[in-house]
Formats: sequence, C-alpha cells, structure tokens
Amino acid sequence: MDEMTDSRTFSGVIAPVLTPFGEDGAPDADRFVEHCQWLLEDGCTALAPFGTTSEGNSIGIDEKMELLEELVDADIEPAKLMPGTGSCSVADAIIMTEQAVELGCGGVLMLPPFYYKNPSEEGLFRFFAEVIEEVADDGLKVYLYHIPPVAQVGFPLSLIERLRKEFPDTVVGLKDSSGDWSNTKAILEANPGFEVFPGSEVFLLDGLRAGAAGCISATANVAAARMRKLYDSWQGPDADKMQAEVTALRKAIQSFPMIPFLKEIVAHYRQDPGWAELRPPFTNMPAEEVAKAIAQLDANHGFKLAFDKAA
Amino acid sequence: MDEMTDSRTFSGVIAPVLTPFGEDGAPDADRFVEHCQWLLEDGCTALAPFGTTSEGNSIGIDEKMELLEELVDADIEPAKLMPGTGSCSVADAIIMTEQAVELGCGGVLMLPPFYYKNPSEEGLFRFFAEVIEEVADDGLKVYLYHIPPVAQVGFPLSLIERLRKEFPDTVVGLKDSSGDWSNTKAILEANPGFEVFPGSEVFLLDGLRAGAAGCISATANVAAARMRKLYDSWQGPDADKMQAEVTALRKAIQSFPMIPFLKEIVAHYRQDPGWAELRPPFTNMPAEEVAKAIAQLDANHGFKLAFDKAA
Repeated sequence: MDEMTDSRTFSGVIAPVLTPFGEDGAPDADRFVEHCQWLLEDGCTALAPFGTTSEGNSIGIDEKMELLEELVDADIEPAKLMPGTGSCSVADAIIMTEQAVELGCGGVLMLPPFYYKNPSEEGLFRFFAEVIEEVADDGLKVYLYHIPPVAQVGFPLSLIERLRKEFPDTVVGLKDSSGDWSNTKAILEANPGFEVFPGSEVFLLDGLRAGAAGCISATANVAAARMRKLYDSWQGPDADKMQAEVTALRKAIQSFPMIPFLKEIVAHYRQDPGWAELRPPFTNMPAEEVAKAIAQLDANHGFKLAFDKAA
Repeated sequence: MDEMTDSRTFSGVIAPVLTPFGEDGAPDADRFVEHCQWLLEDGCTALAPFGTTSEGNSIGIDEKMELLEELVDADIEPAKLMPGTGSCSVADAIIMTEQAVELGCGGVLMLPPFYYKNPSEEGLFRFFAEVIEEVADDGLKVYLYHIPPVAQVGFPLSLIERLRKEFPDTVVGLKDSSGDWSNTKAILEANPGFEVFPGSEVFLLDGLRAGAAGCISATANVAAARMRKLYDSWQGPDADKMQAEVTALRKAIQSFPMIPFLKEIVAHYRQDPGWAELRPPFTNMPAEEVAKAIAQLDANHGFKLAFDKAA
C-alpha cells in the first residue's frame, strides 16, 4: 500500500451489511453479529451497517443503536464500522451520529434528508453543518451518501466542495450510488484525497485507477472475497480479467430483486431459512425462483458460499 | 349536519399544524400549544400535527412524542388530533401510533414507507397490516396519507380497497395531496363512506359535493376561518363565490415557498420573529420578500390575522 492509501480512514471493500430479523420481526442481533464477523473473514475491509441494502431506514432508531452496540460488544473493531446515521430529521441524525462517535466508529455514512424533494443546496449544507457542529467531536468522519435513484435528494459537486471546504477534517469521503460512472469520475477529479467509493464493484477497477478508495457494494454481502482479490492486486496483470468476472457476477445477482435475493443466498448457504426475513415494504421472492436463481449462479459463475469459516 | 356527517370520526377543516422551534433549535412546546389552541378558535375542526407542512419528518421521534403529550396536557381534546405517525420504519411507526392511541387521539395520518421507490402493493399492504396488528386497538383509526409529489410512494385505488376490506373499522379515511382532482374523485366514487380529505381547500367545495369529509390544508394554519365558513354553508347560495375567494387566497399564498411563508405570516402577525425558524433542509425567505408578500395578501385579499383571540 502506498502512503496515500495509508492515510485514508477507510479503503477497500465495504459491505452495507444485511440486517437479519427474528421470528418476532425484531432485528436478530446474533445472526447480525455472526454475519458481520464472517464478512470480515470473507474479505471485507470494513462494514457499513444500516445502509440501503441493510434496510437501514426500515429499522427503528432504537433498534439501530442497539445493533451497533452489539457489534462493538462482540469485539468488532469500531474503526472498521461506518454505520448509516442519516435521517430526514436533523435531531435523529444527531442522536445516531453521537452514538457512533462515542462507540469509536471510524466514520458514518450519511444520507441527506430525503423527504422534501428539490431542497436548496443551502438547506442541505445547513443540515450537515448542524449535525457536525452539534456532535462537535474531532473523531467524527462523515461520508456523504449519494444515492439519487432511491433518496432522490443527492449531492451536487458544488455542495460537496462547500462541505469539504467548511469541514475539511470531518467530511472526508462519499459513497456514489448514482450508478453513473461519469459522476464518480467528476467527483474524483474535483476532489483529490477525498475518499470516494463507487456503490458498485462494477466500477471498482476504473475507480481505483482514477483514485477511488475502494467500493461499498450490496453484493459484498455474499461476494467480498472476489472483490477483495481484485482490490489487492488491481495494479497486477490480471486485473482486467478479474474485473470482468466480478462484473459478470454482479450483473447476474442484480438481475433479481437485490435485497430479497441477497438474503435468500445467505439463508440458502447457511441452511437457515429465517435469514430471508424482510421488513415491509420488501417481500420475499417465490421459493421456486430462488432455487433457480441460486442454481444459475453456481452453474454460470461457480458461485458458492462456505460458511464453515464462520466462528 | 346530516347523519352521514355525524358518523364520521373527522370532518371539516383540519390544519397540518406548523411546528415552531426555539432559539436552541428544539421544538417550542409553548408556541406550539398556543398555535394549536388558536387554530381551533380560528375555525379548525381538528388538527393534524406532524404532517408535511409541520416539517413532521424533520422532527425527531422523541420530540414528536413529547409535543403530542404537551397538546393533551394542555387540554386539547385528543379526539380532535390526527397526528402523523408514519415512518419509513415499521418499528418507529408502531411506537408513534401506539402513543397516539394511548393518548386517545381520534386518528393518525400515516405516510407509506417512503425511502424505497416503487415498492410492491403487497409490501405496502403488509406495512400497514403490521402496524395495525401490532397496535391491536379498536381505538385506532388510520387515515392514509397520499402525497406522491413529495413521498413519491402513494396509494393506488387497489391498495386502498384492500386495506379497507381487511381493516374496515380501522382504515377509515385518506388525505389526498396528489393535487389531482380526478384522483380524489375516483377515490370518492370507489369508496362511499370513506373519509376523504383533499389536501387543498381549492377542492373543498367540489369535494364536499362529491362526498368528501372536508379538507386538510397547509393554509388552514393562517386561513381556517374562511374555509370553515365555506364548509359550514357549502349547500347555501354563496358557496361558489366563497370558494372562488378561498381559492384565490390559496393561490396567492402558494406562489411563495409554502412552509417558510406560512411561518413568516404567523411570525409577522404575532410580532414574534422567532416563529419563522425552520429546520433544514428549509431555509428562510429574504426579509424583503416576506414584507412584500404579506403586503400583497393584505392589499389583494384583505388578509390579516388577529391573534388577540388567543389565550
């Protein structure tokens, strides 16, 4: 690793961790901790609980704060945690961000307030300024979460610039889930040293070549090992070939409903059907479709998960 | 009033109450209670705190629960309260809805989970089913909050029908903030007896003629008296003329940024500048623009507020 990489707070392959639910519908802390530990063994360099893939906004605030504490209690290194603490409400964003900082989390991944559409740039700036000034802790590292296809509200280049200028030691990175490589590239070009993570491993190699810090990707929940190999040897001779394989698997997985399917994959290979539980508004895939899809991944991509590595 | 009106849980002119904030940025319970009491004196038949106009999703969950308790403690009749208790998270929706029912609120106004876009109808149905089954109280009366321009996620006719069929004594009404009269009309036609409230007084008279229960409108925060007069005499000879005046005032107000302007109007006539505070992502209008806008309303619509009626 070069010096630039070393000075980064986060880098590599980060999973927006799936959130398992128990029979009572409540988040299942045991399954959650077990999955997080396995992800770190499988190749993830860090974890981003409570993201979009995590059904983060479908989990209650108290529930999220309890789950985060469970991870730290289970001796998962807080420096490797980048929980989602964004909210439509600045008050709730502050509560969750304060807890994350108190627990020593390496960073937080923050959605903009996403209820009101077309907010002014000034209004979005003030939202983040209020959180940062209220939390008032040098340990706070904010990663902006740009996901316009879902949140609708996003971060234009000018807002990123203003936030970095005002809070250079706090606003240190961004996850770009726009799915638009030209946007990721523009952010990278305008912000040297900013820790930019494309939201899909499809852009991992292009990203690394353009100065990205890695990727934060839904599919890292089940396929981190392959991404990590690419990340570790992206300057090597096989990088393009590895990227092509990584891309092919990603496209195969995302041809199904992403969050339900990822949970079905974990449920299948863990032989733990309860893992597939979802919170509304998500619903489960028909069992037949699941079986077919998993068989396809195996046949076409040699995709299997081995959970015996898990503690 | 005829029998049909009498059997309704809510009817008339309902304000989605503005939420005042103090200098510390926290919700200001004193100003809030005072405004709610004044609204009931000014002509509102009921109050819908924590709606879109209330910056409801910008207020923390604990903050909302405290404010609701303050209203009941201040002897505002709980039967006249229809707080917003929707959330992207079914867990938080349940917490807030349970409190509303415990306090005896006449109903709750519930947004669908609005983070994930294009959810399935089945997923939305399950969200509401989970809230209703978990709260498990005959006192719960749910009003569906259809506001696709903001929430993006809404209630198609088939979902309304399914929810009413499954929970006939609980899912009793809907606020239609689509701004699309043909949608309101279609809901009314398909659902006799359902308590439908257009989200704007522009549709008040047409609504009442088609069987609507009244309206739930942002501008009722400052102009309830005129709407109430129309509501009380909608079958009289002057109804169309009154509607034209009500519509003209609404259009004048909504030509400015609605939520900031409504707060400025209250701040101006109460001579209480702090009333204009907003939570991000909203920002205040320039003072000059406010002065001009208020003078225009006065000149063109004889619009003034008298707060001496307030206790």
